Amino acid sequence: MQNHNPHSNKRVVIIGGGVIGLGIGWQLAKAGCTVSIYERDQAGRAASWAAAGMLAPHAEVHFEERALLKLGVQSCRMYPEWVVELETDSQISVGYRAEGTLIVGVDRDDARELEHHYESQQLLDLKVEWLIGAAAREMEPLLSPKITAAIWSRDDHQVDNRAMVKALIGAYQKANGTLHENTPIDKIEIVKGKAKGVWVKNNLEEADVIVLAAGCWSSDIDGLPQAVKPPVRPVKGQMLALQMEEGIVLQKVIRAPRAKYPTDVYLVPKDDGRLVIGATSEEMGFDTRLTAGGLFELLRGTWEAVPGIYDLPILETWTGLRPGSRDNAPILGETGVENLIMATGHYRNGILLTPVTACEIASLILTGKTSETIAPFQLSRFW
Amino acid sequence: MQNHNPHSNKRVVIIGGGVIGLGIGWQLAKAGCTVSIYERDQAGRAASWAAAGMLAPHAEVHFEERALLKLGVQSCRMYPEWVVELETDSQISVGYRAEGTLIVGVDRDDARELEHHYESQQLLDLKVEWLIGAAAREMEPLLSPKITAAIWSRDDHQVDNRAMVKALIGAYQKANGTLHENTPIDKIEIVKGKAKGVWVKNNLEEADVIVLAAGCWSSDIDGLPQAVKPPVRPVKGQMLALQMEEGIVLQKVIRAPRAKYPTDVYLVPKDDGRLVIGATSEEMGFDTRLTAGGLFELLRGTWEAVPGIYDLPILETWTGLRPGSRDNAPILGETGVENLIMATGHYRNGILLTPVTACEIASLILTGKTSETIAPFQLSRFW
Repeated sequence: MQNHNPHSNKRVVIIGGGVIGLGIGWQLAKAGCTVSIYERDQAGRAASWAAAGMLAPHAEVHFEERALLKLGVQSCRMYPEWVVELETDSQISVGYRAEGTLIVGVDRDDARELEHHYESQQLLDLKVEWLIGAAAREMEPLLSPKITAAIWSRDDHQVDNRAMVKALIGAYQKANGTLHENTPIDKIEIVKGKAKGVWVKNNLEEADVIVLAAGCWSSDIDGLPQAVKPPVRPVKGQMLALQMEEGIVLQKVIRAPRAKYPTDVYLVPKDDGRLVIGATSEEMGFDTRLTAGGLFELLRGTWEAVPGIYDLPILETWTGLRPGSRDNAPILGETGVENLIMATGHYRNGILLTPVTACEIASLILTGKTSETIAPFQLSRFW
Repeated sequence: MQNHNPHSNKRVVIIGGGVIGLGIGWQLAKAGCTVSIYERDQAGRAASWAAAGMLAPHAEVHFEERALLKLGVQSCRMYPEWVVELETDSQISVGYRAEGTLIVGVDRDDARELEHHYESQQLLDLKVEWLIGAAAREMEPLLSPKITAAIWSRDDHQVDNRAMVKALIGAYQKANGTLHENTPIDKIEIVKGKAKGVWVKNNLEEADVIVLAAGCWSSDIDGLPQAVKPPVRPVKGQMLALQMEEGIVLQKVIRAPRAKYPTDVYLVPKDDGRLVIGATSEEMGFDTRLTAGGLFELLRGTWEAVPGIYDLPILETWTGLRPGSRDNAPILGETGVENLIMATGHYRNGILLTPVTACEIASLILTGKTSETIAPFQLSRFW
């Protein structure tokens, strides 16, 4: 999507084969770079796979995170063009849907919090609309009759993140990118403050640039000096998917933030009939076990917002580990180590931020220049 | 456990390799019969596997089901001796536990219903005890502080039904019983009102006696005249198991009947640390899908009775099909077809009723005499 130099032939190693690593790799491979991605497991099967695929910078906004909002809005606007390019290159549909998002207040307390949220959104000049319950149910008749208020956010869209993983793998490989799955690197080779390559199975693969895009495992990479270990930790999310059936088919993304419960829920209907429901947010280290309470909160919240889901079959339950940074924003760009670039810590927004991250990091590598877009997100902000 | 004729050499075919078929087969093989069990799937993996293993005739009693209560109490009393014999024969522990059962009232409505239940139990002269909440929590400190009343039923025990399946298979085969798994029969051969054998893969296996013990599939067996099709249907139950962890280990079986919710729950702690939780009761034919509402009810009910389970990991979720008869009682003994004997329709009580069913049906086959114990449960009661 950027106008890259077609004659670039840099050797780039990317650590991490999630949507971020694959997206950057795809853009660079198309621009003529020689790209290797090293993925410890299967490509795109960690946080990229666990996600729900919401592209919701407007709905998710917190007033104190203006820079992140701007980044999210920019990436959200890139999506239609990104999808066309990705689907063209890969010949795989990624299930991009622009039906918008309804944020609902399930009880009185929720509705009151929703008012505050709406005020914040208006102060930020977001294109959102206040609806009374009846108007919300006109848009999405399956909403509970108890819902008295909602925010309609028409610009918050969604994509099938699992389909996007497949498309990115396909597009990257068609552009001659090399993907090493089930291949953790041993360490990054750094000599006198310069990244030289990565050790893999006792061989050194030299590179002009190394991109660290290893999600919540980013700080565990051997060879990283303490000063450039990104402050990224796993934040567990529990999720499930239901099978929508005739008469119980949602069109829009529903978000139900809950004032009195520990877990907000969202419901994301997919083209293939899956209704993806998430998510808890838990500081549990690398624990990925489903728990009684986690599943209970998801089912309770979903049922209270959309009672019609009661009889739907459960297709799948799973957990994921979001790469959370200290300020919830990603870590993008150059580091204290020459030729070592970071693209990690995307927390809840990895799918949303994939286009802007891929294009801006590719551009940084090709031109050597840090854009204003990613400048606020450099690792150095933490020190 | 019966004093069978050791010289009996009847050829017996049993249709169905659940605990009922295996139990009968084991007793007959030990008595010298030549026994073949035909099981459509894996032995003991249908309702026998899905069960929770409660042996709770006193807790489960309904006032209108006196004959069933008597049968259950008799089988419950047989358990200690049955377990010794089965563990000796199989060399497999079946996790029999005699810590008793607490039936708890989670809210005011539940406590009021519990009073009625207690009155019924007293009218039936059952050995149960009324406890205030504090006394119940002294027995089982993990119970919710909201619980104001409980019934203590010391004679309601439990067994690890999955271990019992393995033990029965082992004991049956050690007694020279033949087990054909993944082998559905084509039809029962009945000539002039006499059962002659079963057709399997186009071969007729002749037998002196045929036992129909096919659980909820019992009425679907080809060759059965309409008049002897047992009125048995599948009643779906959804269940889950949690992994108990340090500090969150129940000792007793907990039952929490709920006045206002569609699903009563029970919690059955096993020796291996599993906490088995059940169950919905749904008329859904042969549908075995987990649903959002089913899992929600189980988790809600469990959490309200024992809040400490909130953070326990989920080990497994599953569904089973109970073989429900028209009056909830099993169908035991002779039928309108000579040499065709039934042992099916055990509904919620299959594990509890295995010893009495196995011993009484074996005795009927060996002696030709229907005992008073099973006489009330013949198929003919429905016509």
